[in-house]
Amino acid sequence: MTGPESGAERTAGPARRAALEQAVTDEVVASFAHARTERFTELMSSLVRHLHAFARDVRLTQPEWEAAIAFLTATGQTCTDKRQEFILLSDVLGLSMQTVGINAASSQAATESTVFGPFFVEGSPRIELGGDIAEGVSGRPCYVSGRVLDDTGAPISGARVELWEADDEGFYDVQYGGDRMQARGHLFSGDGGAYRFWSVLPAPYPIPYDGPVGQLLDAANRSPMRPAHIHFMVKAPGCRTLITHIFVAGSPHLTDDAVFAVKPSLVVDFVEHPPGTAPDGRVLDGPWHEASFDLVLARTR
Amino acid sequence: MTGPESGAERTAGPARRAALEQAVTDEVVASFAHARTERFTELMSSLVRHLHAFARDVRLTQPEWEAAIAFLTATGQTCTDKRQEFILLSDVLGLSMQTVGINAASSQAATESTVFGPFFVEGSPRIELGGDIAEGVSGRPCYVSGRVLDDTGAPISGARVELWEADDEGFYDVQYGGDRMQARGHLFSGDGGAYRFWSVLPAPYPIPYDGPVGQLLDAANRSPMRPAHIHFMVKAPGCRTLITHIFVAGSPHLTDDAVFAVKPSLVVDFVEHPPGTAPDGRVLDGPWHEASFDLVLARTR
Repeated sequence: MTGPESGAERTAGPARRAALEQAVTDEVVASFAHARTERFTELMSSLVRHLHAFARDVRLTQPEWEAAIAFLTATGQTCTDKRQEFILLSDVLGLSMQTVGINAASSQAATESTVFGPFFVEGSPRIELGGDIAEGVSGRPCYVSGRVLDDTGAPISGARVELWEADDEGFYDVQYGGDRMQARGHLFSGDGGAYRFWSVLPAPYPIPYDGPVGQLLDAANRSPMRPAHIHFMVKAPGCRTLITHIFVAGSPHLTDDAVFAVKPSLVVDFVEHPPGTAPDGRVLDGPWHEASFDLVLARTR
Repeated sequence: MTGPESGAERTAGPARRAALEQAVTDEVVASFAHARTERFTELMSSLVRHLHAFARDVRLTQPEWEAAIAFLTATGQTCTDKRQEFILLSDVLGLSMQTVGINAASSQAATESTVFGPFFVEGSPRIELGGDIAEGVSGRPCYVSGRVLDDTGAPISGARVELWEADDEGFYDVQYGGDRMQARGHLFSGDGGAYRFWSVLPAPYPIPYDGPVGQLLDAANRSPMRPAHIHFMVKAPGCRTLITHIFVAGSPHLTDDAVFAVKPSLVVDFVEHPPGTAPDGRVLDGPWHEASFDLVLARTR
């Protein structure tokens, strides 16, 4: 074939390629200019710019794009009313912790936040102050107490404290296969902001790794393990809701948590006691543990 | 509460916030440093950086994060063996076209590529040269012909040409609800690279908008419509596979294609003819259309 085109015109140089690629991004960004809310325009414009920049930076191949489509599809299809694989994906990509940080209270007196995780369940049973949430799950008895305070140090009574944790084999109730709620509950703080409850000493555990997120961790040579912890969500009028964990000091995986959730201020001693009588009068015929932690909420000013 | 902290130390300034947020990104990127392949490390490091930068740029809120999790979950759960909502999402975000561009042949003599779309089906029926793929779908008869060439102008006989298109109401066979393949097929180019087939004149149509992607388009005030087109996928030994469409000149939505797939070089006249005899001797008792387009493949050098 002969024609008017020179060799230089027949192949696309890097500058021309970059301009063509930028033009695609600009066209898509423009398509979001008239969204129903300005915030949606802002969100989608930024998302499109970063998503396209990612594809351009890594020179994403068609097979890689196909693998990504298949991965996201499988992730969605792994979700059930008891399993949230996309939260897990967000967690192992650190997006959950990044979002927690972005939304953290500016008050440094407040307890630090960490990830919500995929195991919260609405409608947990209410326990009285000092009650037991374990409901028969296996593990050493564990007594946790402290105060709910605001970031000026004032006690908050009547704060709603949601608690959920794994048993000593690392499983949450929703992973048992039944519908019974165990090792989860809520209480309201009492006089002086005091809270206290019994449960079991939690164990380190792997995040569910039999699905797409597990395959991603395997491809990354990453461990699915999390250090032992108890989840808290604390709500009180006039305060920012606190979502956090307390971690068991000395637990394995404090330095390589699969979801990047550990903060030094949240690592707590779970003191081991011999059989005997607990502070609340409960008599224990085996070893038990005790932890103390104040929950400090930021006032919404 | 009195303490050693001054007010300045108790609130996190912008610089301290930025450092904390960057530290989260750095920790997650480091977790992908020892993946099973270097390419996976490269892909995930870039993905994490861009994903976190997006969240930081827009100051993503917890409710927005929750909405994103719910949206992605619903998108995965809308996928079936006949519907691929994540490809649709990639299409409306322009990621598909960006990936097509990144992987385009550098030869400017080659036919331009465009999106693959969600409606390709493996195992289409083979037709003879000049055969009809319509299989009874509604629409005006349409005759399409041309040559398969390489980018030096040499004809390629024996190239596999896959074809698929919507009927004159804008539906693909997979949307009819049955298992019958209609308005799709494949043929092999003949002497001199010639290809020709009968089908129907395609119509503009909306991408499926009764699912999560439709909700996204609605929130963006964007139309789900695509201009009328016929899909091609052309394979020949020693050449890059060409995935493209030809668009019907004058079709509505050439300038606001929901998936950003239109390129001027792919817009083709579908000439209308009165009832009579077609070039291949077929006698038509109503109006029919004719389009001509050469398919030029880039050699893999």
